[in-house]
Amino acid sequence: MKSLILAATATLGLLAALPATAQFQKPEDAVKYRKAAFTVMGTHFGRIGAMANGRIPFDGAAAAANAEVVNVVAKLPYAGFMEGTAGTEKGTPKANVWTERAKFDAAAKKMQDEVAKLNVAAKANNLDTLKTAFTSAAGTCKSCHDEFRNP
Amino acid sequence: MKSLILAATATLGLLAALPATAQFQKPEDAVKYRKAAFTVMGTHFGRIGAMANGRIPFDGAAAAANAEVVNVVAKLPYAGFMEGTAGTEKGTPKANVWTERAKFDAAAKKMQDEVAKLNVAAKANNLDTLKTAFTSAAGTCKSCHDEFRNP
Repeated sequence: MKSLILAATATLGLLAALPATAQFQKPEDAVKYRKAAFTVMGTHFGRIGAMANGRIPFDGAAAAANAEVVNVVAKLPYAGFMEGTAGTEKGTPKANVWTERAKFDAAAKKMQDEVAKLNVAAKANNLDTLKTAFTSAAGTCKSCHDEFRNP
Repeated sequence: MKSLILAATATLGLLAALPATAQFQKPEDAVKYRKAAFTVMGTHFGRIGAMANGRIPFDGAAAAANAEVVNVVAKLPYAGFMEGTAGTEKGTPKANVWTERAKFDAAAKKMQDEVAKLNVAAKANNLDTLKTAFTSAAGTCKSCHDEFRNP
């Protein structure tokens, strides 16, 4: 258990070397990348949610594996929020992502922190522990979407 | 160094608990997921390639971080190759993904093995070591695309 947590921490320590700023030549590449990262993250987060909400049977090993993926991928999409890629359609980022960038970054950090806690909780092999951590993490998704995403 | 390799190994050990079979309700969800996983993987693999090919300056920490992401995400797309999702357009999977599934799975495994080696090599902070491992990994992408992807 301890070694697993150390492993997750070491992996995330490495990821800190990824540039926070965009590295995309074209805005459409940045948009495609961030959407892809959210799709992967959302798929695995959704599987944890399905267990937390009783839609699929609880499987501790699968919960831990899904949380591990979420924990890595949650670090990624934000580099894709390149200037000039706000939208107006449903699901696109609102302009305040850039006009209130510090607030947006703080919301992203809050999600990543809750996801890191979920990754620890998911290794406990206990459904109630998973539910609590999932609910906290899901709350950070919703609050950021409410504030920065076109409904 | 040793602890970083152990960390990467432990992370991948966890991921073995992810189901190999598809877990998607609709074929379009499986297609969207696998494309997203390849987009994320390809972006980070491409950054290593840009260093290996001298298009961007070598940065050992960034190379290691990108390889870590590739190593996790390389495990993911194959669950999205759901029966009945072959295509004919450029870039879609050919029908032999399913008619020769064991061969396809072996090609995927070969790529994942080379990516795991790349992840170790990227931690050596040496451009020549990175180049060699990148070239081997890139070869497995190409051979699988040549055989199983519509040109």
